[in-house]
Amino acid sequence: MKTHTTPLTVRPYECDPYGHVNHANYLHYLEVARLDYMRAVGFDYHGLLAAGYIMPITHIDIAYRAAALSEDELTIESTPVTVRRVTGSMKQTIRRGDTVVVEALVEWCIVDRAGRPARPPEAYDLRSAVE
Amino acid sequence: MKTHTTPLTVRPYECDPYGHVNHANYLHYLEVARLDYMRAVGFDYHGLLAAGYIMPITHIDIAYRAAALSEDELTIESTPVTVRRVTGSMKQTIRRGDTVVVEALVEWCIVDRAGRPARPPEAYDLRSAVE
Amino acid sequence: MKTHTTPLTVRPYECDPYGHVNHANYLHYLEVARLDYMRAVGFDYHGLLAAGYIMPITHIDIAYRAAALSEDELTIESTPVTVRRVTGSMKQTIRRGDTVVVEALVEWCIVDRAGRPARPPEAYDLRSAVE
Amino acid sequence: MKTHTTPLTVRPYECDPYGHVNHANYLHYLEVARLDYMRAVGFDYHGLLAAGYIMPITHIDIAYRAAALSEDELTIESTPVTVRRVTGSMKQTIRRGDTVVVEALVEWCIVDRAGRPARPPEAYDLRSAVE
Repeated sequence: MKTHTTPLTVRPYECDPYGHVNHANYLHYLEVARLDYMRAVGFDYHGLLAAGYIMPITHIDIAYRAAALSEDELTIESTPVTVRRVTGSMKQTIRRGDTVVVEALVEWCIVDRAGRPARPPEAYDLRSAVE
Repeated sequence: MKTHTTPLTVRPYECDPYGHVNHANYLHYLEVARLDYMRAVGFDYHGLLAAGYIMPITHIDIAYRAAALSEDELTIESTPVTVRRVTGSMKQTIRRGDTVVVEALVEWCIVDRAGRPARPPEAYDLRSAVE
Repeated sequence: MKTHTTPLTVRPYECDPYGHVNHANYLHYLEVARLDYMRAVGFDYHGLLAAGYIMPITHIDIAYRAAALSEDELTIESTPVTVRRVTGSMKQTIRRGDTVVVEALVEWCIVDRAGRPARPPEAYDLRSAVE
Repeated sequence: MKTHTTPLTVRPYECDPYGHVNHANYLHYLEVARLDYMRAVGFDYHGLLAAGYIMPITHIDIAYRAAALSEDELTIESTPVTVRRVTGSMKQTIRRGDTVVVEALVEWCIVDRAGRPARPPEAYDLRSAVE
């Protein structure tokens, strides 16, 4: 699977005093979509956590193109860019209809409980799931 | 110590499209003030967690009296009402100057890792700290 | 319509360091469900806002019965208890399968731009929509 | 003023099931620090809003270097990089003691109520305040 699409409806409390989605909340939306992506490709994310690893975000480049409003129905496209055993990156685009709301490049790595980059067991190699 | 006061400044992203603090965020403020209370009375909350217990909230009764706005400087008064080994309650009042913004009664209990109510070791008996 | 049910999936960032949904986030869930209720009964909530009114929450009594975890699929039942022109209350229950997670009684009122309780135009009388 | 430093203590509900500050919350911290910066240099941000303008974020590049934990005492350094009448950028670094937690470059613009980039009145020219 190359690109996975997640629908998401803006909740009222995610909007700021200007009526727009607060810019930090888009990072939450992207996280929801990445989890949805992993579920869709059959990657056992919860098994990875149970095995003692976590998958922190190391870098985000995010461009805000248009404002989303309360109850807007958005779609989030998630496409892997690089996938290695310990690190990777994903392009994610949030749209409302044809309008691009947000474009982001998100980089992640896998670390052990001590926070050190670590190779997870082969069962948790995201490359197998993605290809 | 009977009553402890915590100052808190409203952050812009805590306000909703009407410019008011979203009503759920006051529960966050109350949580910040309860932690501050426990620090002030010398209760080793982090030791309690490290010993395998958590302190979930079981009930809240909260009345919203006035709206707070971005950058308002609030004070939160926290006063224990009942303190037992495993359960307790606390009255908390959020004010902006003389104006009462929120009044709440918050009930808590102590549970073990399996989520069952549990007596913590004597070192973590909140009654000793409060009296 | 007497009771309306809203499905909602827990998002990972809504969970605290114990893995449980932070207790404040349930108020967000209840807000999402109330908006969904108003849509389901055909109440023009956005018209009410555009006409210069808002509908703040004045009181919540909430009991936490069980913990919800990341990606739990919850249902939220919303049932009006009292509905008057300017004030009202709603009972809301959050469940995971047969387990009751949260029970709440939520009171609201309608205020004008100055924050004073105010009778909205007849088109925004929630009683007509509910009955 | 070239660099302004804002202290900030991590709140428990800002941490995720791994005990770390959720990565989206750092954007909230950066927003708090930018407001604090504007106050420190005497820029009338609320006047700008009252005059019908808003200052949305258009782009963020953020690197996560280390995890912050509940109740960590952080400092946030904010340094303008470019300041023009309608657009600008700021470098922001979050530290815990000597440890760099987050580095970010944040770009903003000024728009009118219709969301179009717009030159604000001279009283709201951030260049005067910064220099």
